[in-house]
Amino acid sequence: MLIIFTGNGKGKTTAALGQAIRALGQGKRVLMIQFIKGNWETGEHKFVKKFKIQNSKFKIIPAGRGFVKILGDKLPFSEHKKAAQKALKLAKKAINPPAGGKKWDLVILDEINVAVSLKLIKAAEVLKILNNLSPEKAVILTGRGAPKSFVKIADLVTEMKEIKHPFQKGQIGKKGIEF
Amino acid sequence: MLIIFTGNGKGKTTAALGQAIRALGQGKRVLMIQFIKGNWETGEHKFVKKFKIQNSKFKIIPAGRGFVKILGDKLPFSEHKKAAQKALKLAKKAINPPAGGKKWDLVILDEINVAVSLKLIKAAEVLKILNNLSPEKAVILTGRGAPKSFVKIADLVTEMKEIKHPFQKGQIGKKGIEF
Repeated sequence: MLIIFTGNGKGKTTAALGQAIRALGQGKRVLMIQFIKGNWETGEHKFVKKFKIQNSKFKIIPAGRGFVKILGDKLPFSEHKKAAQKALKLAKKAINPPAGGKKWDLVILDEINVAVSLKLIKAAEVLKILNNLSPEKAVILTGRGAPKSFVKIADLVTEMKEIKHPFQKGQIGKKGIEF
Repeated sequence: MLIIFTGNGKGKTTAALGQAIRALGQGKRVLMIQFIKGNWETGEHKFVKKFKIQNSKFKIIPAGRGFVKILGDKLPFSEHKKAAQKALKLAKKAINPPAGGKKWDLVILDEINVAVSLKLIKAAEVLKILNNLSPEKAVILTGRGAPKSFVKIADLVTEMKEIKHPFQKGQIGKKGIEF
């Protein structure tokens, strides 16, 4: 099952996290690979540590190098690209595990749509991985601007549409809400 | 801070659950009151039990009596109404705790928009509770068809818009995804 949470509104990654919680409750194993987020420790990472959730059941890998070309990013574009390529390799292994490889029931590719828009990775490379998804496996893609080719093959797509946002009023991100 | 997740697409309650995870990670205490869901044990309830999350940190109260007037519901409407009124009382106490009462940092009123649409509770009663929300407290309202009066006073509103859904193709809910 392929699920996409896209759109310009808040709630895409958080909805994926919510799915993770439900899946964990049902005894499933969840891997989240973050394509943009880097070493910045967000609420979800702290949660896993604080509540001692075993890595074998729920693992979050912040594989990105942070914001790309905005908010003071000074990292060469090639470094962002390298990180995203590495994340894609991890995704491939998680979705189509080699013999004896770790099996995940739900794989979340966080902000992968954005990684494609930014040309860190190619949509065609992602599609190759998503091909022949076994029915027992669920994959969630998040990020604004989902490529049409992803939407086409997805089973479920929700657009998170911004109706109102405090950033419009000039407020900054709130701890425990935005991160 | 008042957040609303509304719209006809999937991801409203799950986004609220994701917020809960982030807030818990940041050391906050979260209460989720479910206005429609009854005793049916969903992934989120199982999660709390399975991972032994303390009730004092994250509590989910399924205060509803299940689906209203659909999917074989035979319960008198008055019983649904009674349950929703009770849920509203819990919400009031959680958001504006009496002296010495339990303090929650994030209160999720799940499917409360639907409870209003179904006339189980009145929008005006909810607005009274949401009045004078202290800046440290976050409240999330979920459910399709959020009343305009809620949207008006909210800080952040996302519409989850259905682009594609497997139910369109006649598939049934998938364990760990839909519940």
